[in-house]
Amino acid sequence: MPSSKKNSKNWSGRFNEPVDELVQRYTASISFDHVLAPYDIKGSLAHAQMLQEKKIISKKDFSDIKKGMAQISSEISSGSFNWSIEKEDIHLNIEHRLTQLIGDAGKKLHTARSRNDQVATDIRLYLRDFIDEIVRLLAAFQGNLLNLAEKHAATVMPGFTHLQVAQPVSLGHHLMAYFEMTDRDKARFTELRKRVNRLPLGSGALAGTTFAIDRARVAELLDFDGLCENSLDAVSDRDFAIEFCSNAALLMMHFSRLSEEIILWMSQQFGFVKLADRFCTGSSMMPQKKNPDVPELVRGKTGRTYGHLMSLLTLMKGQPLAYNKDNQEDKEPLFDCARTVVETLTIYADLIKGIEVDTSAMEAAAARGYSTATDLADKLVRLGVPFRESHEIVAKAVEQAEKLGVDLSDLPPTDAVKIDKRLTHGVLRKLTLTNALRSRNHSGGTSPAQVKRSIASARRALLKN
Amino acid sequence: MPSSKKNSKNWSGRFNEPVDELVQRYTASISFDHVLAPYDIKGSLAHAQMLQEKKIISKKDFSDIKKGMAQISSEISSGSFNWSIEKEDIHLNIEHRLTQLIGDAGKKLHTARSRNDQVATDIRLYLRDFIDEIVRLLAAFQGNLLNLAEKHAATVMPGFTHLQVAQPVSLGHHLMAYFEMTDRDKARFTELRKRVNRLPLGSGALAGTTFAIDRARVAELLDFDGLCENSLDAVSDRDFAIEFCSNAALLMMHFSRLSEEIILWMSQQFGFVKLADRFCTGSSMMPQKKNPDVPELVRGKTGRTYGHLMSLLTLMKGQPLAYNKDNQEDKEPLFDCARTVVETLTIYADLIKGIEVDTSAMEAAAARGYSTATDLADKLVRLGVPFRESHEIVAKAVEQAEKLGVDLSDLPPTDAVKIDKRLTHGVLRKLTLTNALRSRNHSGGTSPAQVKRSIASARRALLKN
Amino acid sequence: MPSSKKNSKNWSGRFNEPVDELVQRYTASISFDHVLAPYDIKGSLAHAQMLQEKKIISKKDFSDIKKGMAQISSEISSGSFNWSIEKEDIHLNIEHRLTQLIGDAGKKLHTARSRNDQVATDIRLYLRDFIDEIVRLLAAFQGNLLNLAEKHAATVMPGFTHLQVAQPVSLGHHLMAYFEMTDRDKARFTELRKRVNRLPLGSGALAGTTFAIDRARVAELLDFDGLCENSLDAVSDRDFAIEFCSNAALLMMHFSRLSEEIILWMSQQFGFVKLADRFCTGSSMMPQKKNPDVPELVRGKTGRTYGHLMSLLTLMKGQPLAYNKDNQEDKEPLFDCARTVVETLTIYADLIKGIEVDTSAMEAAAARGYSTATDLADKLVRLGVPFRESHEIVAKAVEQAEKLGVDLSDLPPTDAVKIDKRLTHGVLRKLTLTNALRSRNHSGGTSPAQVKRSIASARRALLKN
Amino acid sequence: MPSSKKNSKNWSGRFNEPVDELVQRYTASISFDHVLAPYDIKGSLAHAQMLQEKKIISKKDFSDIKKGMAQISSEISSGSFNWSIEKEDIHLNIEHRLTQLIGDAGKKLHTARSRNDQVATDIRLYLRDFIDEIVRLLAAFQGNLLNLAEKHAATVMPGFTHLQVAQPVSLGHHLMAYFEMTDRDKARFTELRKRVNRLPLGSGALAGTTFAIDRARVAELLDFDGLCENSLDAVSDRDFAIEFCSNAALLMMHFSRLSEEIILWMSQQFGFVKLADRFCTGSSMMPQKKNPDVPELVRGKTGRTYGHLMSLLTLMKGQPLAYNKDNQEDKEPLFDCARTVVETLTIYADLIKGIEVDTSAMEAAAARGYSTATDLADKLVRLGVPFRESHEIVAKAVEQAEKLGVDLSDLPPTDAVKIDKRLTHGVLRKLTLTNALRSRNHSGGTSPAQVKRSIASARRALLKN
Repeated sequence: MPSSKKNSKNWSGRFNEPVDELVQRYTASISFDHVLAPYDIKGSLAHAQMLQEKKIISKKDFSDIKKGMAQISSEISSGSFNWSIEKEDIHLNIEHRLTQLIGDAGKKLHTARSRNDQVATDIRLYLRDFIDEIVRLLAAFQGNLLNLAEKHAATVMPGFTHLQVAQPVSLGHHLMAYFEMTDRDKARFTELRKRVNRLPLGSGALAGTTFAIDRARVAELLDFDGLCENSLDAVSDRDFAIEFCSNAALLMMHFSRLSEEIILWMSQQFGFVKLADRFCTGSSMMPQKKNPDVPELVRGKTGRTYGHLMSLLTLMKGQPLAYNKDNQEDKEPLFDCARTVVETLTIYADLIKGIEVDTSAMEAAAARGYSTATDLADKLVRLGVPFRESHEIVAKAVEQAEKLGVDLSDLPPTDAVKIDKRLTHGVLRKLTLTNALRSRNHSGGTSPAQVKRSIASARRALLKN
Repeated sequence: MPSSKKNSKNWSGRFNEPVDELVQRYTASISFDHVLAPYDIKGSLAHAQMLQEKKIISKKDFSDIKKGMAQISSEISSGSFNWSIEKEDIHLNIEHRLTQLIGDAGKKLHTARSRNDQVATDIRLYLRDFIDEIVRLLAAFQGNLLNLAEKHAATVMPGFTHLQVAQPVSLGHHLMAYFEMTDRDKARFTELRKRVNRLPLGSGALAGTTFAIDRARVAELLDFDGLCENSLDAVSDRDFAIEFCSNAALLMMHFSRLSEEIILWMSQQFGFVKLADRFCTGSSMMPQKKNPDVPELVRGKTGRTYGHLMSLLTLMKGQPLAYNKDNQEDKEPLFDCARTVVETLTIYADLIKGIEVDTSAMEAAAARGYSTATDLADKLVRLGVPFRESHEIVAKAVEQAEKLGVDLSDLPPTDAVKIDKRLTHGVLRKLTLTNALRSRNHSGGTSPAQVKRSIASARRALLKN
Repeated sequence: MPSSKKNSKNWSGRFNEPVDELVQRYTASISFDHVLAPYDIKGSLAHAQMLQEKKIISKKDFSDIKKGMAQISSEISSGSFNWSIEKEDIHLNIEHRLTQLIGDAGKKLHTARSRNDQVATDIRLYLRDFIDEIVRLLAAFQGNLLNLAEKHAATVMPGFTHLQVAQPVSLGHHLMAYFEMTDRDKARFTELRKRVNRLPLGSGALAGTTFAIDRARVAELLDFDGLCENSLDAVSDRDFAIEFCSNAALLMMHFSRLSEEIILWMSQQFGFVKLADRFCTGSSMMPQKKNPDVPELVRGKTGRTYGHLMSLLTLMKGQPLAYNKDNQEDKEPLFDCARTVVETLTIYADLIKGIEVDTSAMEAAAARGYSTATDLADKLVRLGVPFRESHEIVAKAVEQAEKLGVDLSDLPPTDAVKIDKRLTHGVLRKLTLTNALRSRNHSGGTSPAQVKRSIASARRALLKN
Repeated sequence: MPSSKKNSKNWSGRFNEPVDELVQRYTASISFDHVLAPYDIKGSLAHAQMLQEKKIISKKDFSDIKKGMAQISSEISSGSFNWSIEKEDIHLNIEHRLTQLIGDAGKKLHTARSRNDQVATDIRLYLRDFIDEIVRLLAAFQGNLLNLAEKHAATVMPGFTHLQVAQPVSLGHHLMAYFEMTDRDKARFTELRKRVNRLPLGSGALAGTTFAIDRARVAELLDFDGLCENSLDAVSDRDFAIEFCSNAALLMMHFSRLSEEIILWMSQQFGFVKLADRFCTGSSMMPQKKNPDVPELVRGKTGRTYGHLMSLLTLMKGQPLAYNKDNQEDKEPLFDCARTVVETLTIYADLIKGIEVDTSAMEAAAARGYSTATDLADKLVRLGVPFRESHEIVAKAVEQAEKLGVDLSDLPPTDAVKIDKRLTHGVLRKLTLTNALRSRNHSGGTSPAQVKRSIASARRALLKN
């Protein structure tokens, strides 16, 4: 929602801001890094506790800091905190308020740290939360996907390659392809978590600090798995942000594929599925329209994550060590990627439940396009024809069937045996969709039995995590 | 600045929004397309005037619409307009308020148009404004650049290739390279303007309208140069947005190069320039620091424009005609590019005035690295040595000078003539920086005379536009 | 085609090359810049002629150089030229051979120039040729597109938004959207040509040269429109390469959209068109398949141009002046973009001729999806209902028709008037596809008359260029 | 190296190829997928062995196939294999030759598979090899890096933030930042290997096969860790290719940073290091130049990997299941990324050994820029001043020292105590670079002791893998 105030500013004089104010806004990050507030406070409290335990600050100082931070948390929660662009960023906004509230102890909080290691800590805490949420949402999506796949383990639909009807597949099998994709997504985010969950604090501006700090203690207080081992790397490393965006881009690519399919399937030409109304909208001009807005937007938002990934890669290219101000630009792309993925998953987990399948339309479509031709070729192989030859024989049979406008199974026996004597009526009439499905009965194949086995195994894996 | 209210929401329950509200927010665009408000109103007024002139609505309707829109403009300006996410976008927010204010006439405004052609019109009006502003700011930057270049037309600095000292150049000449770059930027934006400045309105949802509209009249009222010639193209074309981002990416790339140079030149190792304090900030940990924040951020923000360009290209890839909801994702990248470029140019036009040059440091640096070696090779050519041979002779002379730790001009005569008898004292002592500069006296060369000519001609061109 | 020799090397010891040879290969560019050979020779000849005219080299030298270059051209043409990786790049390979052939005059050719300005000249000459070819091919494509569009100016098809049937459009109108897109492509390449067609030669390594050269004369000999005005910019500018890739990306995006549509239209679900066999291939497994390989590859190759654009933008980001070796990386992306666009256009100009339309399938599809609903709403407006209300009335009529499984025009009169008394039989029966098409009869609209006018005007414009 | 033959073709008639040949070349992949030959043969042999074990083909057939493949391998190795563009791709080229050599058994090889699952298998085998090589090369680079870091564990250099001198660091510490980066690279490639190393074969065109195959057996024969669990996913999944390019982009980004530093350090302004001659080249114009070509190219080649990543992401966006021809475009970007990373690592592992450090230049640079200011602030904290106040006091001291042109440690006592009485001579004279280094003696800090500990621990980890 736009702040109407801000808008009014935009309206009248967008281009006429005094440069000094503009520089301040250009260099400040508080307009976007304020979302780090809870993490900044959490990190500061752990830092302060360690400083106290190492006698770098007093017990009284620490207790004041705790009290001050509680107050600040509550001000932010209630919306009464007074954010200021003059204080540049989340760190100085909070430190400044702290000093207002508790005096000297506030001025001591920044002992043995720099904003460089502080912000690196904040982002990692933020990202850890988002990763956990993403993994949870992926599992939720998968759970609902499994339900739909199970219901349709034996539903026949046309399998496409090149968007041409290729071979019949089970709808459940088709859906399970997305289980595999999202499972890889989960694995990637889970592995990334290990790299994210290391403590940069204690690296100072770039070289560490002259105080006798205890980094392991801070890591423990903040549930980090370990320390960033090199201070120069710790303050300038943004690998985790890039890797997050890369994982997000892959995830969104998967959902762009699913969305493309749902959009196709909802078109009047396919007519395979209907989507619950709340994921669609109408047209301002055309009264009859019901558009698949959500899948379209998901497909569109994929571009957003690709773009953010490119932003961050560009950002880091060729940067000399250690921290450079360029790095401040890491946040907006990262935050937007995180938000996009969380929202998309939340919606898709629900959307998948709102899909209504027209099984007879699917089956009718599978019957078109000579989708059992491979089965016929395979049959001939079993009768002793080398595959390359049987492939050619069947191609001729398809040509003839096309000419006559009939399906392979309805090819007149006289025509059939003219092409090859092994194309008997007995062979041809077994070319049903059901047989085609059933006969691909090996690990990874589309037979309903295999699909059910696959779903069961996926469900077990899901429960384990 | 964060709305504290919103933040509080983020704080407590970021991940627990009901899906329906989330879908609404996911599909709504009002949070970012509200910046189109003035353009949306302007476009609607022109549309309404044409409808009235063509008798599709009555004079009374039009007069009501004008009154209503004036009221809405003033509400937005004053910040009292009540934006609503239920009304999805800027168009419905305004139309809904209009109908509240003026009743039936409001319901007639959308006659003969769709949001598809309406939003395309809005964005083009928005972009046209930004293009004009960018061209103006480029000229302002160039003006200030010319002043600095003129002041330093004869200032010697080391010209670098591969960041190694190559040949002495005039600082003015060096700066004028950026005049050329920004001149190409201006040309690109100016050419784009022609493609932007065509009216999509009248294209309806995709096919035009059954009403007898007069598109040329609307174009005239809105200062468009012409019409979008095909309704399907008009509602789905986002070339102009991509081209804008591409131009923005090139422009920012140029400023990333200038920024890189300023950052290098401000380092203790170069010490060539100082930057006015307002473009720098300090460190939270290190009391001595004065960091070139603005150039660093400009360098960093380059990534942002690259990313947005990639977002938009991805968005449009493989989209079937005509409008798809994906297109709603065009706005945020585009708006952010526009804002980034305008802010960067505004600041840089000022920053260039705040650069203080240490001419003696520059000259001292030019004296290192045997920067006059090419001049010596050229001299030998004039004495009849084929260039490839003279190049080898001078390479040996440099080797010897390096061994002795002296400059080429100070090579002991006995050493010199041992390498080649034409390396006489007379030849060597003419190898001064000033001579080197002066002797490159042709169009595009670095001699102060040429640089001044260049600046004068640039200044004339600037005045003309 | 792989050189079998090279492959054998790959086979056995891909990873075990000695580092020195690898460094040589890593830094050499001859494996890809050899395509610049004709341009390099052309540029050298113009340079030599100017040197002779300015008496920097002798007439004899120039005549030797011409003779040597003729010999080299013929060796390259006949395939007998001995390319060598030790000579790094196209420039040194040719210069070295020249010196072998003509001795001292060969060693003088490089007087007053550097590889930095030489390669910049070569690429611009190369690109100018490709731009001219691209513009010619765009026109060829457009010509064939106009023929198809003209044939189908009155063919009804469903216009889609959100891939849902929206309103009927003329197929000719639909195709003309691609005329608009490619017309913008032509404009962009034509404008770029002006920026490409300026001479960098004479800029030396970065600062010009101490010789009294005549750059204008070289420009004239090479048909350049003007000079690069600043030597530092001239050797480091790669804007034109980026702009070329950006134009290529936009062009390929357009063809990715057309390809997506052809792929959809060829699917069994749409069945709108057939593609000539030579643009399709079969399957190694499935005997019945005929896949739209060419449109799929075009769609896929779009990614290639996006990637190359990103490569070049990354390459130039943050580079200090002037030439850096990074710039050598500009060639492969650029050459590949140029080749991809030329090949795609060549094929598509032919492919468009090989499209066979199933007009009855298209018309049948247009009849589905209540595509005339807007027409009904417009009719009600003409009867005095404000548009927003008529929109709601028609939405109800569509709902009822959907329930009954009939088209709007077949809604039983009793049902219709219950919804609104103005929904009379007389009104409803006029809701035909033909009427819908005809009634959108304004500039940019889809009525056959407008489409024909559009085609005629496009044809005139095409002939003029 | 260009094939001169090919070049001649380019020369004369680049743009005038007949469309049919062009379509053939446009759709064929043999020009680049021939590098898959060894993997294709390996995969086919395992497939054939399984077919035989499952009695789908005879022992004689399998033995013929083995014989034929041995012959083909040897033909490819020796360079006598006759590649043909008419046979489209590596699979058909080999199968066709096989059938020529062994007749009917060759025609049976393709039983129960499709090119879709075959090519997916080939690429995974190819990529697995490259991943293993990359991990090995990363370790080799790290080993050499550790040697250099150990030698310079106590070498003082200026630590930079914002390219401004910040605090003194140990060169060994600085170098170890790159150990951390490359360690993350290793982790990412190692994790990716698990996802790559799963067998797609048996997935057929998209749905599996009607033959009773044993996929687990094929996986075992090819050393795969497991099966791709869903046939539709298996043939259309290119996650691994994207993830590979993403890992490559991150890796190259790291080396772009190291390269940027080496380029800076080699400049006359820094003068910190020299690079072995074989990593540098000269200038065609300037006789004195020694340019850091290799680091510059590495920095430039980073763009190449970013671009390829973008290509592949674009390629997969919005593709409906299952295999589409677009996917053929996955190979060139992938192969080029793989080659770029392997070559870069091979060269860099050697380059790092060829770096010669000028320790006194580094130390002198560290003494500039008031790099011990933070130490002074920390000292004041220990004397009881809250950090924010001590930060301000020291800022004033730096200002005064700057005015006098002296280092902090040389600030006249009278001046010093005027700023703050605790700035005594005793305090100030302890502000040495050595003390600064030593005092940052905690995990991750820059003290030589910590750096040595870090190196030792890294060495142990390296040996373990």
